[in-house]
Amino acid sequence: MREEINLRDDKQTTLFFDEDITVKQLVTTKGLVIMDDNVASFYYDEFKNDFDVLILPAGEKSKSFDNYLKIISYLFKNGYNRSDYLIAVGGGVITDLTAFSASNYKRGMNLILVPTSLMGMVDASIGGKTAIDYQNVKNIVGSFYLPQYIVVDFRFLKTLPKKEYSNGLAEILKIGMVADEEIYQIFLKNEQDASIKELVKRAIKVKLDFVKKDLHDQNIRHALNFGHTFGHALESYYHISHGQAVALGMLIVSQNKDYFSDLKKIVLSIGLKNSFTFDAEGLMTYLSQDKKRTEKGIELIEVEKVGTYSHSYKSLKELYDLVSGGRI
Amino acid sequence: MREEINLRDDKQTTLFFDEDITVKQLVTTKGLVIMDDNVASFYYDEFKNDFDVLILPAGEKSKSFDNYLKIISYLFKNGYNRSDYLIAVGGGVITDLTAFSASNYKRGMNLILVPTSLMGMVDASIGGKTAIDYQNVKNIVGSFYLPQYIVVDFRFLKTLPKKEYSNGLAEILKIGMVADEEIYQIFLKNEQDASIKELVKRAIKVKLDFVKKDLHDQNIRHALNFGHTFGHALESYYHISHGQAVALGMLIVSQNKDYFSDLKKIVLSIGLKNSFTFDAEGLMTYLSQDKKRTEKGIELIEVEKVGTYSHSYKSLKELYDLVSGGRI
Repeated sequence: MREEINLRDDKQTTLFFDEDITVKQLVTTKGLVIMDDNVASFYYDEFKNDFDVLILPAGEKSKSFDNYLKIISYLFKNGYNRSDYLIAVGGGVITDLTAFSASNYKRGMNLILVPTSLMGMVDASIGGKTAIDYQNVKNIVGSFYLPQYIVVDFRFLKTLPKKEYSNGLAEILKIGMVADEEIYQIFLKNEQDASIKELVKRAIKVKLDFVKKDLHDQNIRHALNFGHTFGHALESYYHISHGQAVALGMLIVSQNKDYFSDLKKIVLSIGLKNSFTFDAEGLMTYLSQDKKRTEKGIELIEVEKVGTYSHSYKSLKELYDLVSGGRI
Repeated sequence: MREEINLRDDKQTTLFFDEDITVKQLVTTKGLVIMDDNVASFYYDEFKNDFDVLILPAGEKSKSFDNYLKIISYLFKNGYNRSDYLIAVGGGVITDLTAFSASNYKRGMNLILVPTSLMGMVDASIGGKTAIDYQNVKNIVGSFYLPQYIVVDFRFLKTLPKKEYSNGLAEILKIGMVADEEIYQIFLKNEQDASIKELVKRAIKVKLDFVKKDLHDQNIRHALNFGHTFGHALESYYHISHGQAVALGMLIVSQNKDYFSDLKKIVLSIGLKNSFTFDAEGLMTYLSQDKKRTEKGIELIEVEKVGTYSHSYKSLKELYDLVSGGRI
């Protein structure tokens, strides 16, 4: 299965879906593959003969300016042009970093994303957002840039660590919460593992619907930030995984909702903690630096009925009230 | 006079032209002004009360990653959001650096360009290109990003050094060569100083026409690269000014054209050298790294009849033939 995606007038992205296609078939010029050492331990051999390969340490720390400059230098020293390809084979850290590099090397070169994590398949690789971290602030710089190709290959899930798998499930759950009740029902029946391909396809479809309507994340795409307002702060402050943070973030804003106890059960069933003790004051200092903060306050997405969402702007005081107990 | 420019569906740029408007009137949130120490010596007082101001050393060396990170850090440490403004008050170095920073801080914040140089008014601030240099390679990273406002204020030309003024004239001359014969005639009559406002307006109009049709510089906007293929190489290799380099670049590709001797005279009359001895082999190593190089070769823009242009792809050998004498 493949889908042509037109997210911008002058650029076409093709999404390949669990199809018998190799990256080599897509690259007509030369390519530099970026992967981390975990992914390399399984997949380096698949790429080493056809492409240059740059291997970075696994983990969020790799989404750094240093690695960005390493990629830029490599490209320049090896005579890469705009029509050549940067190819990210990895999770969100690698796809974000690689896409940011591609977006501004010579003002934009060709890009292929091959997400190897569940999170990457449903979120990081879909939607044109790129980023790196700086001075411990996640995604403090980034851009909107679309790949020529996204290759979603379920084969990679076989080698994905369980923790990473749980992270991806949290992101799929989030998508279900705001826009696809069927996704939520699959989780509620604890059928997520058996239905993983369906979940991924549904989640990508929903995400693309939002992104097509609002590539630059100026209005309705904000729905996808459900759970992320507190999630990002928890993630920055406690260095917990993104999925874990988002799961807790969803619970924090859903404390008085009908589905709250079901949601807690689901979070546990996908391998994540559904309670957490934190420093509310410390968390608020991160929130006050939220990049989505405006004069109107910080936009908060809430779900009253599963599969729908509402948004409103909250003051820091109102947000503090949600976490003042220091525990979810 | 003001002009609304729609270069992208979801973003509007307004160009203010020698009008009684101040930057302060345009900024509804807070703003950080970036200027170099030359410009600051004349204009710091105008901005210091209303905005934060970051002053950088004058010169191409300031278009660096170090200064980019300095800006990003300043923004973050002072709680800047996407809806706040970065304001470049300066020539191409400052506008390119500032716009690149604005384009990716929190994936894009508000931006105002106030070009203080002639070059900035007609070229660097018009067209959405941003860039910084790295490892001695000019514009090796950059992006396409549009400001909310461009304020063209002829008052700044009074304090512009003569050499900078000549640089700007070279860029205006280039625009005339490819698309506006009237501009060329003004130079031929040596009336450029008396007609400077008209020249700037004509040059901006032509540049906007190209940019509107081809924001991402994928086809017809290439016409504006006339003189730049050899120009960029000369500039990188000999550290001569951009205008001087472009003037020589235009002469190199026009050696056998009818207007060649007139063009030589014009280049001299605007205060630039019209002959230059160089190392042809060394120049070619820079050309081989040209960011516009593709499999088809390097695209060269030529002018047969003033006010029109043609383009073709040249091999490195064909380009070498144009400079093998080591002198223009």
